[in-house]
Amino acid sequence: MMFATQDDGSRDGRLVIVSKDHERFLPGPVATLQQLLEEWHSHVDALSGAAAALDEGAGEKLDIAALLAPLPRSWQWLDGSAFTSHGALMQRAFKMPPIESDLPLMYQGLSHTFLSACADVRLPSEAHGIDFEGEFGVITDDVPMGVTAEAAMDHIRLVVQINDWSLRTFAASEMKTGFGWIQAKPACSVAPVAVTPDELGAAWRKGRVCLPLHVHWNGEDFGRPNGSEMAFGFHELLAHAALTRSLPAGTIIGSGTVSNDDYATHGSTCVSERRGIEMIEQGAPKTDFLRFGDRIQMEAVGPDGQPLFGTLDQLVVQA
Amino acid sequence: MMFATQDDGSRDGRLVIVSKDHERFLPGPVATLQQLLEEWHSHVDALSGAAAALDEGAGEKLDIAALLAPLPRSWQWLDGSAFTSHGALMQRAFKMPPIESDLPLMYQGLSHTFLSACADVRLPSEAHGIDFEGEFGVITDDVPMGVTAEAAMDHIRLVVQINDWSLRTFAASEMKTGFGWIQAKPACSVAPVAVTPDELGAAWRKGRVCLPLHVHWNGEDFGRPNGSEMAFGFHELLAHAALTRSLPAGTIIGSGTVSNDDYATHGSTCVSERRGIEMIEQGAPKTDFLRFGDRIQMEAVGPDGQPLFGTLDQLVVQA
Repeated sequence: MMFATQDDGSRDGRLVIVSKDHERFLPGPVATLQQLLEEWHSHVDALSGAAAALDEGAGEKLDIAALLAPLPRSWQWLDGSAFTSHGALMQRAFKMPPIESDLPLMYQGLSHTFLSACADVRLPSEAHGIDFEGEFGVITDDVPMGVTAEAAMDHIRLVVQINDWSLRTFAASEMKTGFGWIQAKPACSVAPVAVTPDELGAAWRKGRVCLPLHVHWNGEDFGRPNGSEMAFGFHELLAHAALTRSLPAGTIIGSGTVSNDDYATHGSTCVSERRGIEMIEQGAPKTDFLRFGDRIQMEAVGPDGQPLFGTLDQLVVQA
Repeated sequence: MMFATQDDGSRDGRLVIVSKDHERFLPGPVATLQQLLEEWHSHVDALSGAAAALDEGAGEKLDIAALLAPLPRSWQWLDGSAFTSHGALMQRAFKMPPIESDLPLMYQGLSHTFLSACADVRLPSEAHGIDFEGEFGVITDDVPMGVTAEAAMDHIRLVVQINDWSLRTFAASEMKTGFGWIQAKPACSVAPVAVTPDELGAAWRKGRVCLPLHVHWNGEDFGRPNGSEMAFGFHELLAHAALTRSLPAGTIIGSGTVSNDDYATHGSTCVSERRGIEMIEQGAPKTDFLRFGDRIQMEAVGPDGQPLFGTLDQLVVQA
């Protein structure tokens, strides 16, 4: 099943169920995606019925460019950094000591706003080192404290595609404090369609989104690494997060910037990683961070050859 | 003015306005404290009227022990570490290099649940190094990105008193990753009454809560350091947080564990700091972390000699 949120003027928007081709919609069984996630098991029959009707051609025409983020805000956004190749590249490039941890890396980020897929990204200054980070993520229902990774798999209700906007001028110094990122991490953007894991078919494996994430910067191909190379599956990230806290319905867990060992073939999903590769291979970074007016597009092609989550297509502009 | 939230079975509870002696209440002008913070300026007259009526003896009897946290959940909890003496003690004790930053230290923490002042604190294991952290905090209305510290002062609507429960077994290793704390920081508790800054009288100075925070552990006096020694005022913490993000109404900003240079006289508000002092003065920590069944009480005596925010009085129990 596929879900999206229409803009009805309210903060949380209005839930709709979307056809597999993203062309049509039917209203959701409750007003918002947040409410559905809180009550998922009560609405299974209604959801199945709506999905079947959409498969048979029912529904109104969907204006995908006008959608909000699937969850325009959430009670919790926990972003991992689960691609080993990204961490290893950054450590080599910046001559940082390796992070001594066998556990998933994770920080809690801004969750009171997630930007719509076509909204302008308003940031205060080009001097802040504006960067994108292409990620996959999952959205959970209510997860009890102490859940096992195995049991956590059943709490993954939806898969999403995220651009975790980052301001690199603040990133290294905030990381050095040990406290994680505040100034370096403004609001993320989320692709318009959230899908149940079964919509990925064989591309949902071991709690990983095994699809390439295509990134274009001002129309030029920037990278298309595959989500398969996560060191931990999302179910394992979820169990890590839930060791000492329950997770509320609507928690979004991020993969971290998608990155592959064979970066020479697949490219990157953030400028910072490309700059790191340039530092390693050419002695200095060659690629600058973003300028106001730059356009970033991201999409992941699903089993049927179409962008599974819709497309992130945004301009960076001065706030 | 003073506010509290009664338990009416809903997730966000029901807003009440509280008399200065915490004995009586009148219903709030809107259903929840969150809503009031979003619409503050629309309700100034109604609030003044209710406060005057309470001053004249109106209102029903308040059951302070049955109150929820003023905000039972919030869209954002940003916790500082603004007491220089605490950081300096920890660095000396653990032989850590000083944190190289002239800026406020701050992480984003769990905000989907704040525990009630008398609720049991359910944690999974004594082996996790269970600790308390006595803090003051402020709650904001909507704050625009880029706000100055001076302008930020006017966005501080309420002052609160917080116990930032911490699990020290995870704290150092999570800090070393640079990503901040997930497993080390379960839900905080908040004292039942949130007050406008003017209720502090002369104890609200330079954006600081200049009151001693009294901590008792199993009935024994543990410490009563004063909130005055913050290296940054709350308005400065707020401007730091808002450099690259807007802050939604209901954002809670924490001071970090209250700590004074003269710790020999005033004691500490967390076990970790006491253990650090023992390491420095006696070569090894002598005080163990908490056990299930332990009771922690915290209160700050206001200008009239009564606990200004009510009292946090909780037992730590096995989840």
